[in-house]
Amino acid sequence: MDESRGPRLGPGAEFDRIRSMTFAADAPCDERVRIGPGDDAAVLQPPAGSCVLVSCDMSVEDVHFRRAWLTWEEIGWRSVASALSDLAAMGGEPLGALIAVALAPELGSEVADALAGGVGNCLRRYDCPLVGGDLSRSPGPAVIDVTVLGSTTSPISRAGARPGDELWVTGELGAAALAAASWERGLEPDPSARLRFVHPEPRLPEIDWLRARIEIQAAIDLSDGLAGDARHMAVASNARLLIETGEVPLHATLQGFSDRDFALRVALTGGEDYELLLALPPGTGVGIRREFEARFDIPLTRVGLVESGSGVDLVDLDGGELQLPFGGFDHFGSDGS
Amino acid sequence: MDESRGPRLGPGAEFDRIRSMTFAADAPCDERVRIGPGDDAAVLQPPAGSCVLVSCDMSVEDVHFRRAWLTWEEIGWRSVASALSDLAAMGGEPLGALIAVALAPELGSEVADALAGGVGNCLRRYDCPLVGGDLSRSPGPAVIDVTVLGSTTSPISRAGARPGDELWVTGELGAAALAAASWERGLEPDPSARLRFVHPEPRLPEIDWLRARIEIQAAIDLSDGLAGDARHMAVASNARLLIETGEVPLHATLQGFSDRDFALRVALTGGEDYELLLALPPGTGVGIRREFEARFDIPLTRVGLVESGSGVDLVDLDGGELQLPFGGFDHFGSDGS
Repeated sequence: MDESRGPRLGPGAEFDRIRSMTFAADAPCDERVRIGPGDDAAVLQPPAGSCVLVSCDMSVEDVHFRRAWLTWEEIGWRSVASALSDLAAMGGEPLGALIAVALAPELGSEVADALAGGVGNCLRRYDCPLVGGDLSRSPGPAVIDVTVLGSTTSPISRAGARPGDELWVTGELGAAALAAASWERGLEPDPSARLRFVHPEPRLPEIDWLRARIEIQAAIDLSDGLAGDARHMAVASNARLLIETGEVPLHATLQGFSDRDFALRVALTGGEDYELLLALPPGTGVGIRREFEARFDIPLTRVGLVESGSGVDLVDLDGGELQLPFGGFDHFGSDGS
Repeated sequence: MDESRGPRLGPGAEFDRIRSMTFAADAPCDERVRIGPGDDAAVLQPPAGSCVLVSCDMSVEDVHFRRAWLTWEEIGWRSVASALSDLAAMGGEPLGALIAVALAPELGSEVADALAGGVGNCLRRYDCPLVGGDLSRSPGPAVIDVTVLGSTTSPISRAGARPGDELWVTGELGAAALAAASWERGLEPDPSARLRFVHPEPRLPEIDWLRARIEIQAAIDLSDGLAGDARHMAVASNARLLIETGEVPLHATLQGFSDRDFALRVALTGGEDYELLLALPPGTGVGIRREFEARFDIPLTRVGLVESGSGVDLVDLDGGELQLPFGGFDHFGSDGS
């Protein structure tokens, strides 16, 4: 129960290991961090006038990831990226991250180093200081809990969508879910789909760029899938979200499917894409779309609009009727309407 | 890998469960929390001019706690209390907490409710809002990761001890370690020792009261044991800490031991007491000691002083020489001196 009796690493080794996750020797001085890891708590200094965003995301082996599917470096990247994606959805800038890890001792230091490498790579890519953590033995599955803090003067809630707003999504959808579905059928996924699963990119630079140009009424990151996350936005905003299924930007690996309904279902209900769904005032998205796409090399696509009412409507303007709900996915629809 | 396929709880149920941890219906409006759980991230508003403290503490079943020893309510309390103790050691006031939990599904809702009850009781006791969390299935041990955020205009580091400062500790030491030692020998611990293990009390009101009256140069919470944590303070402060072993306040359950060395070793090296070690300017502690003890009903005891140099010296002014280091506890001593 205390570190002197158990095989838990002592505080020195623990913080050395966690520090190695960001290769602190390379880290520049950072005005966001007054005291970093190693004291009882880290001391952060958010910019004057800003509020603090915080979110955590726990990944458990064989529940959220499988060793057979991902390298430990990828597991590290993905854990951090999915947490940072929550900051992106709130319009925040990274302030710091804490990484708590429990690993079976027989995994050895190579695994810890590979995991730390993936964590460090993602933190550096998005300029997020590592400010704390905890490293422990696990007598079972590997567990990684990432807490991210961010700052902003004006957070974007998922509750701000208003009738008349247009719905837009960043990037292409469905690739991560397609990769997971391939693995579950014992197949090796298409490499480009696999990449989207193992190496998601939180849309932090994208939201920053967009906020400088247009108003964003509401945002949510697509961790549960467009249909499910649209429902979350609808409930929070007390509005009805209408998605035009023909407009949903399918990832290239899904575009070739002869079964269009299958492809669309994967894109609508497959989670883990970590793209953003945005509610924008009418007419504002179209004016910055080309510049956005040229700068970030991903599409920005209008997929629907916000109406008064409640729930989510999936509308196929090409005439086909999409059978929904399907396949155990029951948390969208227009209940309460 | 996504919530629709796995047995992970969906976001609705997840947040309902986590919200239940603080019985949100009873919660007053809170100026610290602009957006609570349920959005992509919580939005906190630290008081103007303050910095943000953050720390996390992961507890893994059979590493940090055992079901046979603690009730789930106690596991919940203890997880939160140990994290809040880090805020106390920095002189912070609670701003918010995030609780990530992984539980085996066969444990059922009674276990989750009991754990949530303990979490909620401790958060309410110390007036800390629950602002986020994550609830997941675990295919192995229960895992609880608590992240706490705090605020203060002037954080107390463990690095501020200066030659001439006096060392003081709050409360009595050794009871938690004695309880753990009893369990490990298959014995039921003394009830008052057990209580200190299962129901530690972060010294948040105490540090707040002290800071209003005297300067605190450095502080650290006693999670590793007085000897080990003194060493952490010595290293961070680049100073030598001298502990007079005869002054160490032994918990009542240890005072009756005929083997005084054993009792002292438990008090010095047993962790998990979550009391505070403070470095105070000379002469300041004695002036407020009586009032402190009357108010909080725990002792405040001068146990040593800070000198120039490095490492920790344990001095027995009664003449006996304490053999140190001992028993696998190797991270104190005066290395480098």
